[in-house]
Amino acid sequence: MKRIFLASAFFLLTACSVLTPATRYQASGDLGVIIARESGELVVFNSSSRRIVHTVSGLGDLSHASVVFSRDERFAYVFGRDGGLTKVDILQGQIDKRIVQGGNSIGGAISQDGSLIAVSNYTPGGVRVFSADTLELVADIPATYTDASGQQKLSKTVGLVDAPGNRFVFSLFDGAEMQIADFSHFAADGQFSIKRHAQIGKNPYDALITANGHYYVAGLFGEPGMARLDLWHDDQAPVRVLPDYGDKDQALPVYKMPHLEGWAQAGNYLFVPGVGRHQVLVIDAGSWQQVAHIPVAGQPVFVMSRPDNREIWVSFAHPDNGQIQIIDAETLAITETLQPGPAVLHMEFSPRGEQVWVSVRDLNEVQLYDTRTHQKLATLPVKSPSGIFLTRRAHVTGL
Amino acid sequence: MKRIFLASAFFLLTACSVLTPATRYQASGDLGVIIARESGELVVFNSSSRRIVHTVSGLGDLSHASVVFSRDERFAYVFGRDGGLTKVDILQGQIDKRIVQGGNSIGGAISQDGSLIAVSNYTPGGVRVFSADTLELVADIPATYTDASGQQKLSKTVGLVDAPGNRFVFSLFDGAEMQIADFSHFAADGQFSIKRHAQIGKNPYDALITANGHYYVAGLFGEPGMARLDLWHDDQAPVRVLPDYGDKDQALPVYKMPHLEGWAQAGNYLFVPGVGRHQVLVIDAGSWQQVAHIPVAGQPVFVMSRPDNREIWVSFAHPDNGQIQIIDAETLAITETLQPGPAVLHMEFSPRGEQVWVSVRDLNEVQLYDTRTHQKLATLPVKSPSGIFLTRRAHVTGL
Repeated sequence: MKRIFLASAFFLLTACSVLTPATRYQASGDLGVIIARESGELVVFNSSSRRIVHTVSGLGDLSHASVVFSRDERFAYVFGRDGGLTKVDILQGQIDKRIVQGGNSIGGAISQDGSLIAVSNYTPGGVRVFSADTLELVADIPATYTDASGQQKLSKTVGLVDAPGNRFVFSLFDGAEMQIADFSHFAADGQFSIKRHAQIGKNPYDALITANGHYYVAGLFGEPGMARLDLWHDDQAPVRVLPDYGDKDQALPVYKMPHLEGWAQAGNYLFVPGVGRHQVLVIDAGSWQQVAHIPVAGQPVFVMSRPDNREIWVSFAHPDNGQIQIIDAETLAITETLQPGPAVLHMEFSPRGEQVWVSVRDLNEVQLYDTRTHQKLATLPVKSPSGIFLTRRAHVTGL
Repeated sequence: MKRIFLASAFFLLTACSVLTPATRYQASGDLGVIIARESGELVVFNSSSRRIVHTVSGLGDLSHASVVFSRDERFAYVFGRDGGLTKVDILQGQIDKRIVQGGNSIGGAISQDGSLIAVSNYTPGGVRVFSADTLELVADIPATYTDASGQQKLSKTVGLVDAPGNRFVFSLFDGAEMQIADFSHFAADGQFSIKRHAQIGKNPYDALITANGHYYVAGLFGEPGMARLDLWHDDQAPVRVLPDYGDKDQALPVYKMPHLEGWAQAGNYLFVPGVGRHQVLVIDAGSWQQVAHIPVAGQPVFVMSRPDNREIWVSFAHPDNGQIQIIDAETLAITETLQPGPAVLHMEFSPRGEQVWVSVRDLNEVQLYDTRTHQKLATLPVKSPSGIFLTRRAHVTGL
């Protein structure tokens, strides 16, 4: 009997060792996630092996989803259109926590220190802030404003970004305000403060923060131009820049406005999608004056700089969204037009810029291109892919 | 008997489950390594928990060591002064592979695509290139030059960096040359090509590459000024910039020259250590003309921009190396002088800039500071710490 016991013990201990292979260590620096918008799935892929490693389902409505990463690059926080906030463990390929925090959310951000997740909402308006660890609600910012009739109202919030100093910055679509929520003391005393800048211009619809976190710039749907806040001096009122940008006779419905995250900075130039025009605008980053415009194949949606700033890659709105055009950042000439296929929705460059991942929704594939040769290198099968996010974003302000 | 077998089986299977806890998955995005120069150890730490997680020994002479990371942020490649190249698995905390590739190495780089590791050598001169996976030698670049007497000689190589397009760029200290090794085709055909630019100026001693990989700039020990190569047009001869930089009557021995990786760019300004002066020089990044100089507490060694570009942090050479001075990037005024302790050797900012890690050699500690309040937050005990490297560098050209 004893012998049998030992035999069984030996067998089982041997089995145990199989459970702890060297592969139990999994780094996360070259992983990425892809939003599968129709199926509500998050696809985790390895950008080095060019393979899908996990498909995580049950994330709700991802028809307009965005993602931020924890500072250790282990967790992806997915902001769904239905107000869902899902924390996904991309190493284990499973949902760690999920809440439905609002009726209709439009995006989110992670704080500079990685401890807080903020979500901006259409319904109800305002911004809610959660513990990045537990997803518990820690702050609720209603985003109230006073309308023409003197009534207090709640506003949709848009253009939410993280800023240095553990701040979140966002704009009030209905309230024509920018607000800065300062959480720099929150860890110490549980308190936060709000700075408000009113009358920045009608209906800010989206915003961006420059790469170093210096300027926050909101596009205006209700009137031409953009409102720019200097975050190095956030008591100063925002100023109007690019006074002709998106002028009224060219304005399109909000849902067709270009993403302002789609702006590119290359050297001293900003490359900006022309609103309602088949143009990429070139702006001097010092003077914020337009210095040129580049005719392109359609209405630009994403205008992105290759990480070495040598090329600008442009995607387009329907019906021209089967193409990508590549602009030489020095000559401003279009050097090549790629035809990835119907409905190019997003592009994500590898951190050092040698590759770019492209989601082609109606082909149900994500394509990988060599950014030097512009040749296609690989394809991943993904149902209706939209946003692509590499973990490197964990290390970048505003992403 | 059967019952006992099952009982033991149940017990052991229960034990098995203990071997596979959730913690077997380890992300790498917030890890870092510290060079312990006296003991020849690599200390792996977690920048979120602020704890040392591994100490890896047997890396040889680390008295002038540097580190690059694999694109998945799992492996640290450590370049030792004794010519040792060690590939360390920072998740398991053990040496994966180690070779001694030369007699005296001065630094290394990883290719844009992550497949190649290049090492520059004093003895023998030249650059050797290895497989990042296996550390097998795949290319040997002797760095020959012809001296005044017409003899072919081997040169020390310095200022080795990676550049976009899978290129490595380096300078010949004795040969007064810059060379560009193009490995863009290497994966396809095993071939690489070399471009040479001769007579760039006497004794280039170190170099830097701008953050977007556009310019490669070498400091000259043998004469004033610096040589700047435009990597967007690498057939064009380098041009002389900053003609007064390090002028001869101020020149110091090479081993005291400031690190050129210690340059900072903030907005349109470059902040540069003054050679042989108690000054930080301010250069217009557009015109490459000096526009100001800032008196500081000693000879600057590292001049680093906080990631949001709002502040410039400066460390100093002996005997002033117990201090760090902080410069306001806008007013150019010194806002604070910190006293971390004797022999501040290096600083490493967290990717989004909320914290900075500081090695204080003669206190045997690495200190963590809040970059907003400038208060000390934590201390790690490390024997004679020098270089500090966070895994985020895996995602940045030139680091």
